[in-house]
Amino acid sequence: MSFYSTQIDKNVPIPLYYQLKELIISEIKKGNYEENSMIPTEKEFSDIFSISRTTVRQAVTELVQEGWLYRIKSKGTFVTSPKVNQAFIQYLEPFNEQILRSGRTPSTHLLDFQVIKADEQTAEQLNISPGTKVFFLYRLRFADKDPIVLVKTFIPCDICPELSSHNFSRVSLYSVLGQKSSSRIHHVRRVAEAVAATEEDSRYLGLAVGEPIHFFTSIGYTAAQRPVEYSLARYRGDKNQFEVIVYPKNNKC
Amino acid sequence: MSFYSTQIDKNVPIPLYYQLKELIISEIKKGNYEENSMIPTEKEFSDIFSISRTTVRQAVTELVQEGWLYRIKSKGTFVTSPKVNQAFIQYLEPFNEQILRSGRTPSTHLLDFQVIKADEQTAEQLNISPGTKVFFLYRLRFADKDPIVLVKTFIPCDICPELSSHNFSRVSLYSVLGQKSSSRIHHVRRVAEAVAATEEDSRYLGLAVGEPIHFFTSIGYTAAQRPVEYSLARYRGDKNQFEVIVYPKNNKC
Repeated sequence: MSFYSTQIDKNVPIPLYYQLKELIISEIKKGNYEENSMIPTEKEFSDIFSISRTTVRQAVTELVQEGWLYRIKSKGTFVTSPKVNQAFIQYLEPFNEQILRSGRTPSTHLLDFQVIKADEQTAEQLNISPGTKVFFLYRLRFADKDPIVLVKTFIPCDICPELSSHNFSRVSLYSVLGQKSSSRIHHVRRVAEAVAATEEDSRYLGLAVGEPIHFFTSIGYTAAQRPVEYSLARYRGDKNQFEVIVYPKNNKC
Repeated sequence: MSFYSTQIDKNVPIPLYYQLKELIISEIKKGNYEENSMIPTEKEFSDIFSISRTTVRQAVTELVQEGWLYRIKSKGTFVTSPKVNQAFIQYLEPFNEQILRSGRTPSTHLLDFQVIKADEQTAEQLNISPGTKVFFLYRLRFADKDPIVLVKTFIPCDICPELSSHNFSRVSLYSVLGQKSSSRIHHVRRVAEAVAATEEDSRYLGLAVGEPIHFFTSIGYTAAQRPVEYSLARYRGDKNQFEVIVYPKNNKC
């Protein structure tokens, strides 16, 4: 138990519960706790660090809220699987490659795939008239057995009619779109929001209503600046994190 | 009332509550509802679109959860102020400039500024020994009267001892660090997470415990690759969104 070699410092202005949180996170990140292994009890933490059980409870409760730990009633508190670190806001990369890079196995469950008429919102984003036919693709994507993201995608049918002949539980959308320059995605504008899980999120992603979701609205453009993909991706907050390197404006290249 | 000219389409496979949500969002985005103006009641929406009040309730409840609307008991449902759109994950730009660009007035409340000893987590991020002296800067930042983000920043004292002579409720940290190349931030690595608001968030940012927070952990590096800034920024989910343009890997420049 590596906690015995670490300390909580009562002389710094950082709250004790926060120091304990940071210690636990640090132990998890160092790999000293495997997924689903049990952490010390409230009483054990309280004894190890000479801090109150209330302080321990606050730290553990927040770590549960933040997705680092989970509780099983009358059994104990356990370490969740680590968040999948993705480059989704750094560059375009197929979902499968991002998950493979994290050492996990990607898979996709196709929830829906059909032709519908674009509603106002979709039409506005894709710069088409409301009522224009679009493919509606609805996918739930996994890393190992964990549901990671729920994605709705809208693509004008005239852009790539051959989409209908593919099985998107196996095939990458971007690889199909990439077969012709008129539908190849050149860049994507994303907007990131943090929102509360809805009932639909809860049903598919298996978290409680109200829990944090990373919500990305993306519009994919061809090199000719035509918007050809509008998508709404809802990532479980407790299973995903997104890394990016940023530079001052006009200073990257 | 612009809702009378729009429609909900019962022949598409998109749930009615979702269509109503999209309609309301679209009206807000078009500027047809000012901040703090009242939207139609459940009964009015139900009559306008010939949909059930349960459907209306689901749409409105989700829009409240997602920060588009707020309810005042026995008065009605109102439009919140729009999210501040920021380039925080696209490039480095001072907070004040981001807020000014959105047409609002930035300000900063300095909660704490002192020299402390780096704890394990901070030391690891800054590549220094635990116990090394660091500046601890704790700021609450506003757009107009709205609290937007709560930021804790840690900077090794040896990097820029002159920080202590500045008033960071007025001065930009990056402008002071930028005065010497040995402390000038060249690029920042950020990790974005969606987490639940803690009691500390709630106290300063004025949202309820459990509501969504964008949590960014950032490490700022000098051109010589020395990490000189470690910061933890907690943005209100209902007040902020982050926009970024992404390109395929190795394809940007």
